[in-house]
Amino acid sequence: MAAVQQAPHIQGHGSYGKNVTDALLQEEKIESSSVAKLSKEHDLVLKTFRVLIADLCAQYKAGHPGGAMGMAAIGVALWKYVMRYSPTQSNWFNRDRFVLSNGHTCLFQYTFLHLAGYPAFDFDMLKTYHSEKPESLCPGHPEIEADGIEVTTGPLGQGITNAVGLAMATKHLAAKYNTDGFDVVNNHTWCMIGDACLQEGVGQEAISLAGHWKLNNLTVIYDNNQITCDGSVDMTNTEDINARFRAANWDIIDVYDGCFNVDGIVEALKKAKQSREKPVLVNIRTIIGVGSAVAGKAISHGAPFQADDVQQMKRAYDFDPDQTFVVPQSVREFFADIPSRGKEYVKEWDELVASYSRAHPKLAAEFQSRRDGKLPTNWEAAIPTSFPSEDTPSRKASGLTIQPIAAAHPQFLIGTADLSPSVNLLYPSAVAFQNPSLRTSCEINGDYTGRYIHYGIREHAMAAISNGLAAYNPGTIIPVTSSFFMFYLYAAPAVRMGALQKLQVIHLATHDSIGLGEDGPTHQPIELAALYRAMPELLYIRPGDSEEVAGAWSTAIKYRHGPSIISTSRHALKQQKTTRREKVALGAYVLEECEGKADVTMIGVGAELNFAVDVAAKLREKGLKTRVVSFPCHRLFEQQSVQYKRQVLRRHEGTPAVVIEPYSALEWARYADAGINMKTFGHSLTNQYVYKHFGYEVGSMAERVEKFLADRKSERILPGEYAEL
Amino acid sequence: MAAVQQAPHIQGHGSYGKNVTDALLQEEKIESSSVAKLSKEHDLVLKTFRVLIADLCAQYKAGHPGGAMGMAAIGVALWKYVMRYSPTQSNWFNRDRFVLSNGHTCLFQYTFLHLAGYPAFDFDMLKTYHSEKPESLCPGHPEIEADGIEVTTGPLGQGITNAVGLAMATKHLAAKYNTDGFDVVNNHTWCMIGDACLQEGVGQEAISLAGHWKLNNLTVIYDNNQITCDGSVDMTNTEDINARFRAANWDIIDVYDGCFNVDGIVEALKKAKQSREKPVLVNIRTIIGVGSAVAGKAISHGAPFQADDVQQMKRAYDFDPDQTFVVPQSVREFFADIPSRGKEYVKEWDELVASYSRAHPKLAAEFQSRRDGKLPTNWEAAIPTSFPSEDTPSRKASGLTIQPIAAAHPQFLIGTADLSPSVNLLYPSAVAFQNPSLRTSCEINGDYTGRYIHYGIREHAMAAISNGLAAYNPGTIIPVTSSFFMFYLYAAPAVRMGALQKLQVIHLATHDSIGLGEDGPTHQPIELAALYRAMPELLYIRPGDSEEVAGAWSTAIKYRHGPSIISTSRHALKQQKTTRREKVALGAYVLEECEGKADVTMIGVGAELNFAVDVAAKLREKGLKTRVVSFPCHRLFEQQSVQYKRQVLRRHEGTPAVVIEPYSALEWARYADAGINMKTFGHSLTNQYVYKHFGYEVGSMAERVEKFLADRKSERILPGEYAEL
Repeated sequence: MAAVQQAPHIQGHGSYGKNVTDALLQEEKIESSSVAKLSKEHDLVLKTFRVLIADLCAQYKAGHPGGAMGMAAIGVALWKYVMRYSPTQSNWFNRDRFVLSNGHTCLFQYTFLHLAGYPAFDFDMLKTYHSEKPESLCPGHPEIEADGIEVTTGPLGQGITNAVGLAMATKHLAAKYNTDGFDVVNNHTWCMIGDACLQEGVGQEAISLAGHWKLNNLTVIYDNNQITCDGSVDMTNTEDINARFRAANWDIIDVYDGCFNVDGIVEALKKAKQSREKPVLVNIRTIIGVGSAVAGKAISHGAPFQADDVQQMKRAYDFDPDQTFVVPQSVREFFADIPSRGKEYVKEWDELVASYSRAHPKLAAEFQSRRDGKLPTNWEAAIPTSFPSEDTPSRKASGLTIQPIAAAHPQFLIGTADLSPSVNLLYPSAVAFQNPSLRTSCEINGDYTGRYIHYGIREHAMAAISNGLAAYNPGTIIPVTSSFFMFYLYAAPAVRMGALQKLQVIHLATHDSIGLGEDGPTHQPIELAALYRAMPELLYIRPGDSEEVAGAWSTAIKYRHGPSIISTSRHALKQQKTTRREKVALGAYVLEECEGKADVTMIGVGAELNFAVDVAAKLREKGLKTRVVSFPCHRLFEQQSVQYKRQVLRRHEGTPAVVIEPYSALEWARYADAGINMKTFGHSLTNQYVYKHFGYEVGSMAERVEKFLADRKSERILPGEYAEL
Repeated sequence: MAAVQQAPHIQGHGSYGKNVTDALLQEEKIESSSVAKLSKEHDLVLKTFRVLIADLCAQYKAGHPGGAMGMAAIGVALWKYVMRYSPTQSNWFNRDRFVLSNGHTCLFQYTFLHLAGYPAFDFDMLKTYHSEKPESLCPGHPEIEADGIEVTTGPLGQGITNAVGLAMATKHLAAKYNTDGFDVVNNHTWCMIGDACLQEGVGQEAISLAGHWKLNNLTVIYDNNQITCDGSVDMTNTEDINARFRAANWDIIDVYDGCFNVDGIVEALKKAKQSREKPVLVNIRTIIGVGSAVAGKAISHGAPFQADDVQQMKRAYDFDPDQTFVVPQSVREFFADIPSRGKEYVKEWDELVASYSRAHPKLAAEFQSRRDGKLPTNWEAAIPTSFPSEDTPSRKASGLTIQPIAAAHPQFLIGTADLSPSVNLLYPSAVAFQNPSLRTSCEINGDYTGRYIHYGIREHAMAAISNGLAAYNPGTIIPVTSSFFMFYLYAAPAVRMGALQKLQVIHLATHDSIGLGEDGPTHQPIELAALYRAMPELLYIRPGDSEEVAGAWSTAIKYRHGPSIISTSRHALKQQKTTRREKVALGAYVLEECEGKADVTMIGVGAELNFAVDVAAKLREKGLKTRVVSFPCHRLFEQQSVQYKRQVLRRHEGTPAVVIEPYSALEWARYADAGINMKTFGHSLTNQYVYKHFGYEVGSMAERVEKFLADRKSERILPGEYAEL
């Protein structure tokens, strides 16, 4: 493609940042004297928008004005001319998706949502930006809760990666549900990025995958203003951006005057949308803070303008310098047709779907049920009612549990960061999500109907893309990711964003704890669970045997409003007699009770649950009345009643609890008085030897628990002092 | 550059994985019938090496054989012909650095270290790979503790990024200490990567920066075997790798027969080393598991071969199929000159440094002191003895503390992920680390002597590169990184690797807690401290005012064997009267004591320390005997004696402790009985309103503490039950 806008025009409104424009002019050989084609109508819209941004930031003397102002013409092209959406039906299923990956420029989006007629974004709401109002829909970065906002962005690189997920969802649903003459899913994903998304690694992962999958329904618009917080981009990035995208199988369209040439931008975006083969980068040169006194300068990025700068700008624009928040009637009229146009789009689509339902009643019924986002009624029936009694790795039990569910129910899109042989998610009938033209040595065939996603060694993108899949239309797709648990540290920023947005994404993590063995300390997660146990909205579940694995999956699938991590073992685990799948949802439960006041409660978790059971048996041999509690999930336990919690732990009766888990002790003082935890990083030794190396031998552990009880009795250790045994 | 090896040769030893070689042949138009130039000597060395790898994996039926076997010829080129090092003086300052970024192929490195004559890697040690011996120097991934291993690798993408740091260190020290005729620092950094390092985002960040900085002393060798765990690379990556590197300002050298053509590889590597301008990617096509029955297949990546496969391979190689661990005498002799050659290199260098010392005594003395890695004697004198008494953001106090130290002492290399205006680290005399040819709009000049590093918006690479800087020669460079605290979640995998390797890297994090305000929940770290408090070896320090900031920096600088995070506020903090910088090193200390048994201890931390002090005052008004403890660092407190801990907390006397920190409650149950913590993600509101929104108002907090004390008295809340107020 690589079409180039041949008629660039820069009009001399306001003062330009000298350094940036000079550089642009020289590099791109643009004649600054060329006559602008900017219509009077567009001119006033752009001026009005820029002045509005300046006023909004001046109001509370805070905000990010520069980026939004520089992107004004792009916004007009998008919301007025190019995107298909309906402001009054903001959740219309087949709407174009827009993602603002440079989320700090949020005013750009809020203001266009306002101008385009989204009812939630009335003028009063727009003015709540950086106010004291907690109910504001205009926070410092766009948040998914508001109409017209597809995903929460802010941490850089996340949005572009979410956008890949949104575009994949369209591709997948189109391949699955469209039929001849019935393109019921054919929306486009538009994503704005700034320089940062091209520097963050996760953005690079996203670029690579979008090109690989040939997502021609994705257009990334690069607000190429060459400015970051620290100054000029060339201080930190001298890549040839277009060449980088081409290397990743993208097409490029260059636009040289991104500040004023609305028509040129519209033409470029329309061309991008017509791409048949590849995703398209529209590389648009803009000037940050254009029209202001600090145009082209880093200072315009994250600081409001001075009051007299705003006044000066208004004067140059023929606006009354003493008036604020002025939107001329003609500008209102310019945007006025958008809501009715949107209703028309929806009506046409509703009619299309109605004929589709008549032509393909079965497919249409499934399509409807997917749009409703409800779980299929019979999904739980696919879970095995029992598991092999021999020692089984919980990652294997996980495969036995989820594979039949995933195979039967099209909601599940399962992916892995290059660990198919380890994570046991690949079910026999699986088809890879892949561009059908791709001929690979892949063992399974692929096309866009595929629901098994090879993400490559890109854990961060895997999680961020899954957020996009989940956010597409909540419940339509339940994305499952998989990797070693340790590498969910790479994915953590995206897992967090999923939790923050209450998106149902299920992360299947294997090789948890030191038990994974010889891969050593770089792979042994001994502190990572602390992060996920502390993270709101997320369920970190460590099942102790196959029965609890079934419970973990049930719990995660039923949890529609947040992510879960199911944390499994590489090695084979003993099957316990008293584990109960339905009790996993309680977070913790009594596995072995004893009559009267107990001497100690042993808490077991995940791969080491069997240690707790075995140590308890040993302690009983020594005459100690010992209970056992299985504790698969902190957050779920925290949600139970005080009464239930006391009944499980019985610490209020004076019975101390000792937890066995080769993770940091940090998170256990809340529930236990002592723990056999990790004080250091792990060690590279095979499974049995690594446990031995760190003292996880039943005899030794029982002795240490006994000594602890004696120390408590003799008050060498006092209540309230967590003892690391 | 882009020179191409014109004489590729593939010799038909063993069976090749059909799919891969066919693809290679087709794509690269290599004639497989070409006569091999492989010498008999090299042939036997390669065969011996590959059989050794097979035997080492067969021993304990575990390991990653395929990659190491495929890279045999590259290893011969490196250790025999190209790298400058001394096996018996493995820490020679001016040695070439080698990083195995595809760390799972660790046997490659161990076996060449053995053959090259590193004393620690004798034959018995080599055979400890995957054994039950905890003292093994041959763990599942290379670990820094062993001679000849520069950095611990394993998590993919880290090694290549560390290598950028190592190459930067050479560039910087050479610019600083070399003089005409005295190139006392001129070593080269060699880094092996596999396909994964080209997919992981952090690897992409590293590629971008190395090209930007024109690190021509860095050669990355791509073991291009087109196989990952899941199968063929083209399933997940169809980028044009060479074009991608060229876009990032690298030169490329292609080698088509990487399995046998030792001479060709040597020629390519030597050419790469001579690069004048750019870092070089040597793209070497290899066949994973070459020589084995599963050559070219994913199965050869992470699983040992079957016993009869190993025997079959030996037969094909004219080795006795029943003998294991055979190294023919001629192969030993092939490597025999390396130790003496190495001693010669060191001797020459020692002589050079001796003449340098005579010619430039002052510079040489500083160079010597840098090599010794000790802190300068007078560094602490640069810390202000007092701070402004008005409310001061701790990030500002941090600047006042560290800027004069950094300006005066060349050990400090300070960097930021594009947040110079926020982190207050840019001291007046700072010079940017930059290729001097680069003409940018940067406000400070740059060359390789520069010690202020603009990393761009690449937090992960910033931390991983800093690990490389710190590992170069421990103590020679003290890298400081900086960003918002929340974005240390992006950097976390590298921060962890720094902790695992006990490397002194100081991370200056600002905008901690919800107090940062309007940037909102995406930027408000409410669960991240749990990760870092759980992470071994790392100090997470939250100073409460300027005085404690001084203590935090002192503590971090004196902590030579691990990383620290100094966590500061965006907003201005009250200056407390009784904070003491020297007590920060104790982790926690009594700020306000009271006579006799207290009713409650208020624990304050960081930006919210002033809340604890104010709530305590309020409680005293209500007649409650209230103590205050400042608690800047969990790990440091944990290291104190039981006696000291009791004296600080006094919980053993029955006085409950209540902590105020708008982070998750998770990590506090160990030290407190109740907390005013965060149960949800944050909210976008300006500083004062966000605190108010979450109930951090002094009056309301005091009331809740009072109620808690009453609930404890009435046994509605029982001891051992952490109460979230």
